Amino acid sequence: MKQISSRDNPVVKNAAGLKQGKHRRQQKAFLLEGERAVRELKACPERVLHYFVQEEMFQKYQDILQTLGEERVYLTSDKVIKTICDTEHPQGIAAVVSMPEGDLQKVLQIRGLWLILNGISDPGNMGTIIRTARALGAAGLIYTHASVDPYNPKAVRASMGGILTLPVLGPVSVADLACLKESGMKLLGTQVTQGVPYYQADLKGDLLVILGGEARGMDRELISWCNQIINIPMNAGVNSLNAASACAIILSEAYRQRNDGII
Amino acid sequence: MKQISSRDNPVVKNAAGLKQGKHRRQQKAFLLEGERAVRELKACPERVLHYFVQEEMFQKYQDILQTLGEERVYLTSDKVIKTICDTEHPQGIAAVVSMPEGDLQKVLQIRGLWLILNGISDPGNMGTIIRTARALGAAGLIYTHASVDPYNPKAVRASMGGILTLPVLGPVSVADLACLKESGMKLLGTQVTQGVPYYQADLKGDLLVILGGEARGMDRELISWCNQIINIPMNAGVNSLNAASACAIILSEAYRQRNDGII
Repeated sequence: MKQISSRDNPVVKNAAGLKQGKHRRQQKAFLLEGERAVRELKACPERVLHYFVQEEMFQKYQDILQTLGEERVYLTSDKVIKTICDTEHPQGIAAVVSMPEGDLQKVLQIRGLWLILNGISDPGNMGTIIRTARALGAAGLIYTHASVDPYNPKAVRASMGGILTLPVLGPVSVADLACLKESGMKLLGTQVTQGVPYYQADLKGDLLVILGGEARGMDRELISWCNQIINIPMNAGVNSLNAASACAIILSEAYRQRNDGII
Repeated sequence: MKQISSRDNPVVKNAAGLKQGKHRRQQKAFLLEGERAVRELKACPERVLHYFVQEEMFQKYQDILQTLGEERVYLTSDKVIKTICDTEHPQGIAAVVSMPEGDLQKVLQIRGLWLILNGISDPGNMGTIIRTARALGAAGLIYTHASVDPYNPKAVRASMGGILTLPVLGPVSVADLACLKESGMKLLGTQVTQGVPYYQADLKGDLLVILGGEARGMDRELISWCNQIINIPMNAGVNSLNAASACAIILSEAYRQRNDGII
């Protein structure tokens, strides 16, 4: 274990920089804050570059550090922790985690139900969708350039550890997605009023489910590629549902179709 | 139309105070910010106590003010608007709206599917649940003391106007809910692993669906009152879903059972 007390230490500066997308892309890493999230790292300890633990909290978090390897631990002051963390009241523990690499070929290898997020702009929605996708058995998630970065601190928190285990690919352009269309995987678009109710669609097998952004919906080109359009029936005169809620409704129906009788 | 330029004007001070629950309860009013939300007031213009419009925006919002009645409009500076509003970049328009009154007898009059929120603590979740409940045909929503105030500014924003049209009752204690149990309405509890999958339950007719808080779930007493417990099947090893996402999944299935064949 090493000790850092200065906020000017380069390791601290690099970690604090991860609040910005530019630095996350340069360092190919992101920050995970708080006890619950750091405990999830047990699933992938090899991806942790550093831990930062507030000295007074060392006793409390000793079990985590023992499991995960003390050699990458920096003991710090609460000032340093506050500099690194994005939350107003950090819990005295944070980790710098490497981003996984991967391209769209992964979709063709893993197959199953993949989500394509085409312009989700709210980081809370992005994180909640990742959490839901992991809970409801999606194979992974692809996001286009118009979407918020899933490694944004708010998105990471809302994903409740999902960002560590769900395969997440992007950002990609709509043109990049042509290889998936050409592979013969079924493309399913979501719209507010067009198409058939989601529960009338076949959501089994290899499938790409596209969710548009909160304000503008799906790109026209993507709509034109879809094999089917689905909607969520709702009361007349209501604009739409929250994007993460809409995603949960569709993924839960897919989980039911894929697993009912098996559970 | 009147003009206000000072942040010390009592009308401004009262409106700015509405960020706090204490003042909302005292004034029996809450603040609605932004163009989209204020436009929703067309559904209930009688509930508006005042409008505040930034002078430079008057032209832009003239159509709203004409529809809604210019006599309750205050023209103000951007400083005054910023004092009143909760968002960092207000859109130059806000309204003070009276809270509706009502007690649990309303549930027995309206009937249908009512949600009971028993400890939802995140205002974004609260607002999203109100938005979803309105879209997916819930009759109304009741919240217990342990829940966040649905008139909290973040909750109001996330409800996307739903707070204006969905009947919302509370805060009530668990003991207050006994009258609903005794009325013979069916009580349906939600748990992570207990009970039957939500799609195997009958979600038609008069029904109270209880959602527990994000961290602690439902109160034990409420669990003991339930006629049935439902869960959302998901992958093993995953903690749970976001509360608003879980609510959307259950309400969408209820909407389907109640409307399929009719839509």
